Amino acid sequence: MIYFDHNATTPVLPEAKEAWLDAVDRYVGNPSSPHRLGARADKALADAREQLAGFLGCHALDIVWTSSATESNNMAVAHYARTLAPEAVIWVSAIEHPCVVEAARRYFPKRVRTIPVSEKGAVSEDWLNSELAQDRPGAVIVMAANNETGVLQPWREISTLCREHGVSFFCDAAQWIGKLPAEGLGGCDLVSGCAHKFGGPKGAGFLKVPSEGRMHSLLVGGQQEEGRRAGTENVPGVLAMTAAMETREQQLSTGVADRLEQRGCFEKAFLEALPGSEIVGLEADRLWNTVSALMPESDCRQRWVVRLDKAGFAVSTGSACASGKEELSHVLAAMGLIDSQASRALRFSGGWETTDEDWVALLEALKEADQSEP
Amino acid sequence: MIYFDHNATTPVLPEAKEAWLDAVDRYVGNPSSPHRLGARADKALADAREQLAGFLGCHALDIVWTSSATESNNMAVAHYARTLAPEAVIWVSAIEHPCVVEAARRYFPKRVRTIPVSEKGAVSEDWLNSELAQDRPGAVIVMAANNETGVLQPWREISTLCREHGVSFFCDAAQWIGKLPAEGLGGCDLVSGCAHKFGGPKGAGFLKVPSEGRMHSLLVGGQQEEGRRAGTENVPGVLAMTAAMETREQQLSTGVADRLEQRGCFEKAFLEALPGSEIVGLEADRLWNTVSALMPESDCRQRWVVRLDKAGFAVSTGSACASGKEELSHVLAAMGLIDSQASRALRFSGGWETTDEDWVALLEALKEADQSEP
Repeated sequence: MIYFDHNATTPVLPEAKEAWLDAVDRYVGNPSSPHRLGARADKALADAREQLAGFLGCHALDIVWTSSATESNNMAVAHYARTLAPEAVIWVSAIEHPCVVEAARRYFPKRVRTIPVSEKGAVSEDWLNSELAQDRPGAVIVMAANNETGVLQPWREISTLCREHGVSFFCDAAQWIGKLPAEGLGGCDLVSGCAHKFGGPKGAGFLKVPSEGRMHSLLVGGQQEEGRRAGTENVPGVLAMTAAMETREQQLSTGVADRLEQRGCFEKAFLEALPGSEIVGLEADRLWNTVSALMPESDCRQRWVVRLDKAGFAVSTGSACASGKEELSHVLAAMGLIDSQASRALRFSGGWETTDEDWVALLEALKEADQSEP
Repeated sequence: MIYFDHNATTPVLPEAKEAWLDAVDRYVGNPSSPHRLGARADKALADAREQLAGFLGCHALDIVWTSSATESNNMAVAHYARTLAPEAVIWVSAIEHPCVVEAARRYFPKRVRTIPVSEKGAVSEDWLNSELAQDRPGAVIVMAANNETGVLQPWREISTLCREHGVSFFCDAAQWIGKLPAEGLGGCDLVSGCAHKFGGPKGAGFLKVPSEGRMHSLLVGGQQEEGRRAGTENVPGVLAMTAAMETREQQLSTGVADRLEQRGCFEKAFLEALPGSEIVGLEADRLWNTVSALMPESDCRQRWVVRLDKAGFAVSTGSACASGKEELSHVLAAMGLIDSQASRALRFSGGWETTDEDWVALLEALKEADQSEP
């Protein structure tokens, strides 16, 4: 199988696998235990915290280890619910991951305002600028890069804007990290990410929290993580996560431009080869790995998935979290696409290891599947 | 180091390590993804669900994968908060793990009634029987085996009693599973456990939930686990957990009696060698691996930990979760121990692989540390 579903999850990097195995052997103790084996595990966690904080640009103690981006995102929104005024409204972009959208609905019933996105799929700074001049939300929540379209969001600018207005900014960076340098993300008040989106194992994530003020736990009943997240820390998972991130950050220092070109070539050839097809957010700044395509035929995109699967290619209809139920994408709807367009969406998401040949092979498979259509 | 802190966390079994590595290589896809690699990962999860359900004695679909017992326990209590009447009171044993106690405090403020324990450290069926005849709680929460003392709780009888009274029963089995056969636990309405307490990796746990009725998510924003727990499942973690459990369940079919004798020999020799020492719950049915000892000297138990650490033995002062803050144990207090006793508590918790020689060596080290005391 050639794997084009990296936005759903990624294979585990050899470096991460080694780090996991090494940690399992070396850090046997519980980081909270009072003996040497506990202290050793705790030190390993502290070192990993320093390393991740270095990549993000924040204080090591601002990092809270979690089990996933879903947990981090639920935790961030639940924290806002416990700290903001009872009538506070949070502003949430229209294209957030379901775990942010649903957490917002749970913890801020009827107190969520949707931040619109442009046709290109990005939150408008201008909109935020003018709205923040008139109103003061409890928090602003905008992701760094969209999981379905790959469209980059202006998180740096939004972070600055929110700071100017004294509004807390939470950025879900799960799809950004490992695909683009993490530098600067630590400047956002809250930032989430997880290992399995960039070559680390499933079951390890983090939430960067503000240095000032108390951070409320979502999971309670233990003093781990400075009382901010109860539960024995997943030491091997954390060390595998930072090992994967180290590898990715090194790779990202060169090579992104090549991969953008790789994607561009594929898209150009794709649009030519399959008349009636479209690329979502074609003109937008997007992740180098993500192609959100509207296929020519309009009946059933599941058939494309099946045909490509048979041909040896793993692709997705959209977010893995949402695709199980096969509802149409709220992301594409927010960009102004109508149902008959959104129902034609397929997502191809490559990885750093995906080669030119893989993209060419995918194109050939798409052409063949298109022609085999009765 | 000879490791006597298995109740805090356990080394990862070779079988679990292999299962993790195998899963990382074989199940690359996201279980929610629509292609073959996704379906394969989903099938692996389903098989693991069958296997765990087989050990517990419940339906496979009653198993929800989580990241830890802490998450499972928070989820169980939060679920009660969402389903029970607004004025419902839950009854929680006095010796529950902090993650149950604090979750109860969070979700049932002023609506928690404490179930007392005997001097032996066990919940009394008689007490429950007579109280349930007079009053009807929203739920009863009693663990299977205590993490600090190892004292076994009458969960089978409580489960039956609760069923007779139509009251939901939640049992935290984190310390039971892997040390005694899991059979029958599936008969409790809710049951929690986690891998790293029995030779599986950190970052993997489960909650067995009722077959009937909707189970509320603690983490929202994804349709995973039948909508009961959002977030990409930790496939390798789950498979490593069930591999570890399989190994443990096989081992437990014989050999528990030997280990009880092993512990008995140690305790007898310990009490003789260190006059003034005591064993907590000496007369109670306890896990074969756990010795909760009150040391002869009364000043500072941390010094015992340090002296034993120097001698090459990893022991704990109590729950790893609680020991960081060095508060005195609520478990020992519930058993009627006064502060000057509880402050002398050390916990020795062996593993299945701990040998007779290890226990003898621990005893020698304790004697030596006692004599070296100025």
